[in-house]
Amino acid sequence: MKRILTGERTTGNLHIGHYFGSLQSRVELQDEYETFIILADMQVLYDHLGDEKGKAIRANVHLALLDNLAAGLDPEKVNFFVQSEIPELAELTMLFSFLVTVGRAKRNPTVKAEMEQAGTSYEHMNLGFLAFPVSQAADILLPKANLVPVGEDQIPHIEQTREIAHRFNTLFGEVFPIPEYRVSAFPRLPGLDGKNKMSKSLGNVINLTDDEPTVNDKIKKAYSGEGHALFTYGRLFGVEPNERMGVFKPALAEAVNAFLEPIRARRRELEKEPGFLREVLDKGRDRVREIGVQTLAEVKERMGMVY
Amino acid sequence: MKRILTGERTTGNLHIGHYFGSLQSRVELQDEYETFIILADMQVLYDHLGDEKGKAIRANVHLALLDNLAAGLDPEKVNFFVQSEIPELAELTMLFSFLVTVGRAKRNPTVKAEMEQAGTSYEHMNLGFLAFPVSQAADILLPKANLVPVGEDQIPHIEQTREIAHRFNTLFGEVFPIPEYRVSAFPRLPGLDGKNKMSKSLGNVINLTDDEPTVNDKIKKAYSGEGHALFTYGRLFGVEPNERMGVFKPALAEAVNAFLEPIRARRRELEKEPGFLREVLDKGRDRVREIGVQTLAEVKERMGMVY
Repeated sequence: MKRILTGERTTGNLHIGHYFGSLQSRVELQDEYETFIILADMQVLYDHLGDEKGKAIRANVHLALLDNLAAGLDPEKVNFFVQSEIPELAELTMLFSFLVTVGRAKRNPTVKAEMEQAGTSYEHMNLGFLAFPVSQAADILLPKANLVPVGEDQIPHIEQTREIAHRFNTLFGEVFPIPEYRVSAFPRLPGLDGKNKMSKSLGNVINLTDDEPTVNDKIKKAYSGEGHALFTYGRLFGVEPNERMGVFKPALAEAVNAFLEPIRARRRELEKEPGFLREVLDKGRDRVREIGVQTLAEVKERMGMVY
Repeated sequence: MKRILTGERTTGNLHIGHYFGSLQSRVELQDEYETFIILADMQVLYDHLGDEKGKAIRANVHLALLDNLAAGLDPEKVNFFVQSEIPELAELTMLFSFLVTVGRAKRNPTVKAEMEQAGTSYEHMNLGFLAFPVSQAADILLPKANLVPVGEDQIPHIEQTREIAHRFNTLFGEVFPIPEYRVSAFPRLPGLDGKNKMSKSLGNVINLTDDEPTVNDKIKKAYSGEGHALFTYGRLFGVEPNERMGVFKPALAEAVNAFLEPIRARRRELEKEPGFLREVLDKGRDRVREIGVQTLAEVKERMGMVY
C-alpha cells in the first residue's frame, strides 16, 4: 500500500476552508493509501515561541486531532502523530541540514514570502524558520511517503523535499522514494468579511467547532455589500443565490449547520472518552516509529555511522 | 559532582598537540568532575559530507576513542558517547534552533572565520554549518554540564551556549545551569614544518598512534632551519637545546618515544579486546541518555509539549 504524508502546523481550530481544501480528500484517500497525519507542534515555534499560540501548543494539538477525527478520518486506518514525539524526525532533520545550503534555503519562495509578510529580513528570523522546509522533508521522507496532498503555496516545500531525497540518494545510494505531490483542486474560500481569503488569524472563518448559534451569528453579521462572497458559500452548501439577504442568510446558516451537525456529533462522542486521543496518538507514534527507526538505521548505515 | 562536557569532531588521529592542549587536563579532571566526552560524528558532516573523511567516520570515531583511552582516560569514570547515538541531542538542537536568529548565528566569529578560511560565503555553506554552535549548545546543555574546557577559538561557541541557556531559562523557567568555560593554558604547538601551527590537515604533527620508526623519521625530517620549532618540543619533553641537530634530533626522538610508549602499550592492550570499545560507548550512551531523557522531558514540559 502506498503512503501519504499530510498534516498541519497546530496553530488552532480548523475551519470549513480546511475541510473542503484538505480534510475531505484525506477522508477519501484513507482507504487507498496508508495515511500519516503529522500534528506539527515544533513547526509552530518558528513564529510563536513564547507567545500565546506557543503556550497553547498542547490544547491546539488536541484540537487539530479532534477536528480531523470529527471530520471523518478513521484512527484505525490513519496514523496520527505529534512531531515532537518522534525523535527520529529531529535526527533526520539534522542530517538533512548538511545537504541544503543557506542560499538554497533562502530562495524557497514560500519561506521568502512568509518572511516578507512578517515585514522583516532573514537576519531576524530564527534558524528553525529557515530550516522549516528541511524539517518538512524529514516529515515526508522518514515514513517514505509516496504522495503529499498540498495547497498551491506548499509546492516549493515539496520541491525542496524532492531535491533532498535525490541528493541523499545520489551521495549514499537509494534510500528514499521521490515523493509526488497532488495539488488540491479546491480553491481557497473567501472570508466572511468579503475582503480576504479565509484565514484563522483574521477571524473571518467558520470553524469546525462552531456551534449553531455561533454559525447563525457569524453569517448574520457577514459582509453582504458589493463584492460579497456569500454566494460562493451558497454554491458549496447547495443554497440558491438570493439577493434578499433576509432570506438567503438564514437558508445558508441552516445548510452550514446541517453540514456541521454530523461533525459536531462525532466530536461529542469523542469527548466522552478523554483517554481516546492519547490512544490514537500512541498507535500513530508506534507505527511511524516502526518505519522511522528502520529508515534512520538505513540512513546511518549508508552514511557509515554505525559503531 | 559537577559535570564537564568536552570532546572532539572525529576527523582523524589525535596528535601530541591535542594531548598537551586537552587530553592531559581531561585526565587530571576526571576525578574531580563527572566527565562527558562527545565524539561528534555529525559535526564532521558540515564540511566533509560524502568526502573521504565523511566516509571514514566510523574508523575515526573508534580512533578518537582509542586515543582518549590510551592517553589515560578511565572509561569507568568517564562517559564517552557518539553524538549520533543520542537522539535527544538532535531534538534539543532542533528546539534551540528557534531561539537563535540567522543574524546571530552569522556573527559567531569562529563560524565566520571558518567560512572565510574556506574561501566562500554563508550562501554556499550548509544549514548544519551555520547551526553548528547550536548543536554544540545542545551537547553541553543536554547533560547540564557546568564546565567546558576549551581552546581560545572555541570561546564564541560557549558564549552562544550561555546565551541560549539564558534565553531558554528566561522564556520558560530555570532548566539549564549557565556553563562556565576554562581556557587551556597550553599554547597550540608549532608544527614540525616550522611554518604552521600543528594541524591534522597539514600533516606536520606527531600522532599519538605513531610508532617508533615513524617518530624517528618525522623528527629526522623536521625543519631545522631559521625559526624552527624543535626547541619548543625540547622544552616539552625535557631535552636540552643543542644547535647540533645530529645530536639534538635523536635525543628528542628518544624522549618523544619514551613519552608515547605507555600510550602505545595501553593501546595494544585495548586492541586485544575488540568488543571493549562498544562496551565503553554503551555505558557512556546509557549515562548520557539517563540524564538527557530527563532534561528533554523537563524542556518539553516547560514548553507545554506534553500530550
